[in-house]
This record gives sequence, structure tokens and C-alpha cells, in this order.
Amino acid sequence: MDSGADIAAGRFAHHGGRLCVARSLFPDVPQPWIDLSTGINPSSYSAPRASARERNRLPEPSELAKLEAVAAAAFGVDDPARVVATGGTESALRLLPYLLKTGSAVVAGPTYGSHADAWMRAGVDTNMVADSEVAARASAAGAAMTVVNPNNPDGRVLSREQLQTLHDSLQANGGALIVDEAFGDLEPTHCVAGLAGTDRAARMIVLRSFGKFYGLAGVRLGFVIASPVIATQLRHMLGDWPVSADALRAGLAAYADEAWAAKTRLRLHRAAQRLDKLLVDAGMTIVGGTSLYRLARAPNARARFTQLISHGILARPFDYDSTLLRFGLPLGAKDWRRLADALKVQP
Amino acid sequence: MDSGADIAAGRFAHHGGRLCVARSLFPDVPQPWIDLSTGINPSSYSAPRASARERNRLPEPSELAKLEAVAAAAFGVDDPARVVATGGTESALRLLPYLLKTGSAVVAGPTYGSHADAWMRAGVDTNMVADSEVAARASAAGAAMTVVNPNNPDGRVLSREQLQTLHDSLQANGGALIVDEAFGDLEPTHCVAGLAGTDRAARMIVLRSFGKFYGLAGVRLGFVIASPVIATQLRHMLGDWPVSADALRAGLAAYADEAWAAKTRLRLHRAAQRLDKLLVDAGMTIVGGTSLYRLARAPNARARFTQLISHGILARPFDYDSTLLRFGLPLGAKDWRRLADALKVQP
Repeated sequence: MDSGADIAAGRFAHHGGRLCVARSLFPDVPQPWIDLSTGINPSSYSAPRASARERNRLPEPSELAKLEAVAAAAFGVDDPARVVATGGTESALRLLPYLLKTGSAVVAGPTYGSHADAWMRAGVDTNMVADSEVAARASAAGAAMTVVNPNNPDGRVLSREQLQTLHDSLQANGGALIVDEAFGDLEPTHCVAGLAGTDRAARMIVLRSFGKFYGLAGVRLGFVIASPVIATQLRHMLGDWPVSADALRAGLAAYADEAWAAKTRLRLHRAAQRLDKLLVDAGMTIVGGTSLYRLARAPNARARFTQLISHGILARPFDYDSTLLRFGLPLGAKDWRRLADALKVQP
Repeated sequence: MDSGADIAAGRFAHHGGRLCVARSLFPDVPQPWIDLSTGINPSSYSAPRASARERNRLPEPSELAKLEAVAAAAFGVDDPARVVATGGTESALRLLPYLLKTGSAVVAGPTYGSHADAWMRAGVDTNMVADSEVAARASAAGAAMTVVNPNNPDGRVLSREQLQTLHDSLQANGGALIVDEAFGDLEPTHCVAGLAGTDRAARMIVLRSFGKFYGLAGVRLGFVIASPVIATQLRHMLGDWPVSADALRAGLAAYADEAWAAKTRLRLHRAAQRLDKLLVDAGMTIVGGTSLYRLARAPNARARFTQLISHGILARPFDYDSTLLRFGLPLGAKDWRRLADALKVQP
């Protein structure tokens, strides 16, 4: 049974959100599927859509500038020239090796897999390092170091002071620090977006996602915050129309809506606590996470993964540790109940 | 008067679609503005939109593969592995210098300005060459040559045989041929998308736009057709979610709708003939173009440009030739009449 569970888990260990694979592998489980394999807010911001006229024409530079200004204000960045809108952080991080041209890359991990993949695919010597090694590695000559903060999946947070120290050490050696704040909207107190690219942190680059916190991952919108020099180079790599009219509309409305953001932070925090209780009651241990996903440990996590699938529920396994499972938030009373019921059955 | 006209024209010579600039410079002209400065079909395909659920989650790999398969069929490409979906051709062409890593770049022109800009911004030695020089330049060692076909703005077309010969010459010298078929949907007989990246043309890369012919430029969708090796490298540069859920929905429906495409080709052809008649009646000479834009010449083109602005109509001037104006297609009887009336007034 365990080896079957391992094979199934292997298909879902690279990325979350592979519901089509689950559907084709397990056609006979209860429907509809509950996808808890991602860290995307299931309760989306009710974002306006581009009008027919806006879909017809090219977005104008002034509209893009307005979006970047509103996003800058939301991120606590005082100069919108340091904020570059992109068609999602995934696309942006793939360009960093070509933009920064460093001799080597270091990724603090385990973490979101695309970071190391991006540098390796670009032919750059890339190493994963544990958090305990990060400070020592920052003195490697010319390295670009990526830290996801808070980290995915374990939720580990480095303080602003720690990140400033890391940056200074990397900069002194001709390197750069990339801070992926994909889940930064959940706890703005830890964010360094306002610092990135200023004179105090000229070689710090911050990535911000739109789709996760606002629950609009399909819209494809993200931001890079960097020094004016790096931001200008990135704008040239992206061209004149990096985001869609729909993303412009959605981002403009969402980032201006502070009340929704404050309310959502609270609501997600409570949902995460509720999820923790379910997982603990089922005999699992909470390792960490953020309000959008929880990382839990159990010796029988792989069997648990398979058993949840038999209830039409997709969690997220990891290939580097078979005792871990990550859970996103269910949406609505019915899905919460289905998850609670499925977790009550011991695998 | 001419110098004022020149200054105004300079603001619009880089790209079409700068209506926000026109609005702020000329607030008192008749409203609404008629934007004829682009080559975008004003009569958009009625494309479905992504559902709320599709906006919430990340697009799945299977959906992207399906879009690329439908687009491949529409382009006459027999293997969808050679077709890579991107968030618009503008974003794709900006990556080509990093993808192809050639020693120098040659752009046949005058043409769409982003091509030369992309290579120069990437630090590559870049030359513009006239069509008459293209064949001779193809023997330059290791050059990436870009040909827009049909060309924008003059509509010049190179035959498939000419493009194959160019490719073979470039390939023999370690170079590559990029064919931008942004307006290729208008006349599929000239297109080489089906050839690009096959064994017969391994170093030919074709760009296809979605937004122009289908009138959905704000959706941001485009395609690169290349050899499996180049296509795979490009996919790595773009990451796992290069296009939005909305672009997936729109592209899937549009490329499968052959009847709309056939009808639209005819309709645009007739509209272009009607536009030619208006321009000739106004004393201008038709230089060329495609069914989505017409390039016209008049000694007083700059004064004509300013005078059209005074009627709330934005045409497209060019900084390299003050006697040229490009016109997109008006939409609807009222706009056609406003254009006809404005053209009757001699500047």
C-alpha cells in the first residue's frame, strides 16, 4: 500500500494545483474534488473585469503606471519607479538569472521549487542550502541568494534585520538578495518591499504575488520591486504590455481596497486555526505554514494522502519528506465538513 | 505650423495606441476619440471569459497544451510541441536575444520598432537593413535576422521560398531567422509557421499575435513557433503559467472558429478597400499595408495628422518619414463618416 501511495504522491510533489492529473488517475472518487494542494485564497476578491473596449485595445502606459503606483502604496514602497508589474511572479523569477547575471545561485530551502529550477535552466551553478547555512553562504562571491519569506511550505520567517544583514553581506561580495514575498500580504510587518532597491538595499529584489492573497491566480499578475536601474532593465525585458487589461482592472481595484485586505487577513487567520485543529485532532503535528496553508507531519502521511484522495480531497505531498503534507483552506461549510469527515477515518 | 505638427507627431511615432497622450495634449477636440493609430481589428471576436473558478485557480498544464494544440492547427503546424503560448508577442520577442544568444542582430526595416529595441536593450550589436540588403546580410556570421511578414507599416511580403532561402543562408553561418507573422492571419498563404522549427528550417522562429486579427489585444496572447529544442528552452524562460485563464478561454474558442476567421478576412479586406478610396479621394497615395492598416503618403502628411487630431481622430505618423501616415480601420457607420468628413477638409 505504501509504495502505491508513494507513486501517486510523486505525481503531485512538483507543484500544487494538478487537479486534472488527480481527475484522470482517480475518476471514481466523490465529486466535486476539493483542491487543497495550493496556497491560494479560495475566497477571491470580487475584482472588476476589463470592459469589451479594454479587451480590444492595448493597455496604455498610463494605466500600467497607475497600477504600479497603487501597488507601491499597498507594499509600502515610496517610489513606484521601483515597482514593475509582470504577468505573475513565476514569469518574473524566470527572468532573474538573465537580469542579474550573477556567477552562482543559492536558494534557501526546501522551498517553492521554481526558484532553483529557474537558475539551473538558465545554466547557472545552483545550490540549495538549509536556513542554518544561509548566513555563511551569503559571503560566496557573486551569488544571487533567494529567500522565500515567509517560506513555503514551512512558514519560516526571517526578520527585516536578518534580511538586511544578508543583503549587505551579499552586496559586499558582488551578489544579490531575492526575497520572494509571495505570501507577504498576510503579515506586512515582516515585509521588506519598502526597502528593496533603495540606497540601503540596492541589490535586494522583492517578488510580490497578486493571485494568492486575492484569490485570483488565473488572472496572472505579480510585481518585482528593485532598484531603478534593475527595474528599468526588467521593463525592457518585459516589453510595453506586460499585463492584461483584466489584470490591470483587478489589481487597481484590489490594491486600493485596504478594508478588504484587513478583513481578509483576520478571516484567513481564523480559518488557519480551524484547519490546525482538524489536523491535530486527526493525529497530525503542525510544523508551520501561513494563514493560506498549513504544513502537517504524520508518520503515515503518504497513506493519509491516498486516503484523502479516496474522499475526493487533494492535499500536497513533498518528494523530500514522506511524512509531510500541506493543506490549503477549504471553502464553505460543505467542504469543511467533507475534510473533517475524511480526516476522521484513520488510514 | 509644420514645426508644431512635427512636435505633436513625435509623441506618437514610437507606438500606436497612445490615446491617453492624445487626450491630455488635445482635450478640446470632438469626442469620443477615434483611434486609428493601431492595426488592431476594431470588431473583436466575441470571446468567452474565464469563469470565477478559473480566475481563482492556476491554469492547468493540460489547458495550456490544449490551447497550443488548437493554435497549432490554426497555424498549420503539425506538432503542437513546436508552439509555445506567451502573454503576447511583445513579451516573447523581448526574450529572443537571451534565448538565441547570437553575436549580432539584423532587422529588415523600417518596421515595428520593438524588434531592434529588444536586441539593443539586451546589449546585442543591432543593424537595420533595407529589404534590398537582406539577402546579402544573411551571410553575416552568427546573426539573428528579423523579418516582419507582411511588414508593418508598408505591407511588403516575402514569399515562402525567399524566407526559406534566407533561413538556409543564416543557418549555414550560425545565425537564425525570426519571422514576425503578427498579421499572418490575414493571408495564411504567405505564412511559414508550419515550416518553422522543422528539420528543413530548424533555425527559423515564427511569432504569431492573437490580439490583432481577433481584436483582443488587451487579453495579451501570442505564440512562438520554433524547433522542439528552442521551444523547450523558451518554456523554461516563461515558467509554468505564461498566459491567463482569460487568454486560455479566448484563444481556445477563437482558434477553433474557422468560419469566423474566413468571414473576417473578407470583411477586413473590403474595409481596407473602402479606406483606400477615402485616402485617395483626399489626395493621398496608398503605399501599401494589410487589411488591418493602410500606409498612405502625402507631402503634407504632418499637417494632415494635426488636422485629423482637431477632428478627434488619431492616425499614426513615423519619425523616419514625415510624408507617411498609417491608418487603422474605423468601426461603425458613424466613425467612417467622421473620418470621411475630416479627410475632406484639406489641411
